[in-house]
Amino acid sequence: MDDAARYRDRMRRKKELVDRRIARATIDRGVLVVNTGNGKGKSSSGFGMLARSLGHGFHCGVVQFIKGSFSTGEEAFFRRFDGDGVDYHVMGEGFTWETQDRDRDIAAAMAAWDIAEQMLGDASYDFVLLDELNIALTKAYVPLERVLAALAVRPGRQHVVITGRGAPDALVAVADTVTEMRVVKHAFQAGIRAQHGIEL
Amino acid sequence: MDDAARYRDRMRRKKELVDRRIARATIDRGVLVVNTGNGKGKSSSGFGMLARSLGHGFHCGVVQFIKGSFSTGEEAFFRRFDGDGVDYHVMGEGFTWETQDRDRDIAAAMAAWDIAEQMLGDASYDFVLLDELNIALTKAYVPLERVLAALAVRPGRQHVVITGRGAPDALVAVADTVTEMRVVKHAFQAGIRAQHGIEL
Repeated sequence: MDDAARYRDRMRRKKELVDRRIARATIDRGVLVVNTGNGKGKSSSGFGMLARSLGHGFHCGVVQFIKGSFSTGEEAFFRRFDGDGVDYHVMGEGFTWETQDRDRDIAAAMAAWDIAEQMLGDASYDFVLLDELNIALTKAYVPLERVLAALAVRPGRQHVVITGRGAPDALVAVADTVTEMRVVKHAFQAGIRAQHGIEL
Repeated sequence: MDDAARYRDRMRRKKELVDRRIARATIDRGVLVVNTGNGKGKSSSGFGMLARSLGHGFHCGVVQFIKGSFSTGEEAFFRRFDGDGVDYHVMGEGFTWETQDRDRDIAAAMAAWDIAEQMLGDASYDFVLLDELNIALTKAYVPLERVLAALAVRPGRQHVVITGRGAPDALVAVADTVTEMRVVKHAFQAGIRAQHGIEL
């Protein structure tokens, strides 16, 4: 066999293997995706899936926890579709270490969670992004049991993406797809500050 | 000290630490971001950064390698901004195991690379996403040296995001921010096929 024939043969077998694996995956339903770990890409991946969902004409909901104090590129961009594909909410307070008041932090997180809970109970939402919810869970600003309960009874075709470092084990247990974003290296370590379009 | 005072104190010290770290990171320049690993989120994170970049009014370029055979939500969505913020190119052929012809695969990858190389040489692009380029590099469809050379001489303020499993070591070495997306679990393993808005 010459090189080209060997290549065709290898690719044909690979295609068969892939086709068989794809044929075995036949279930369609809403999935729960969790992006966690210390690396970059947890939130941006959530916003990429939001873009995908909008590309399919889905009705989408976004609640951003924690990151309320500064405006970001993703907010500026997706606000263009507010009420026209996306309902977009940002928590009222900034990063917690900027308020230094635990009661206020909890109140802000719970107000955001109330909106999230309504989305999870509303079958008109095809896709819900709960950005940085894991932070609010880790700090016990939002009770984990309430989140798990709302996820469990949500509409069967609704996709949910939850981001943030430190995803609780019980959330990982009920999720369908979980990715740990692991830092190999980060520009910040070399003295480069957060850049528009990349982090902001 | 009561609980509230202790909390304020801890948060104040945390804020000082964060402020000091932020004060040390003062460099602004174009960064090279690489998303690799076997987990979900490499491409979607790239598209999230694209959305961020559009939110800042950046001029963006996208070249999707390998994934040309089916249309995706991200393509449908970002094509709306084609010529109005984004120049969007998709490689002409499908996944390699669907063509089974190495010469055709190389020709398709190199045609896509030619467009990418033009973007990397053009200071009018603030942000360039080379989606799944790592696959083309791993298969040696596109010569690594040409990619490294084009990255090295690109405009100083241009951000570049490269995605795909198996990022070559030499690419990781020159990148500013590298994340390994690690699979904790995937819905596919439970028989759920790729879902619109999530994978497609």
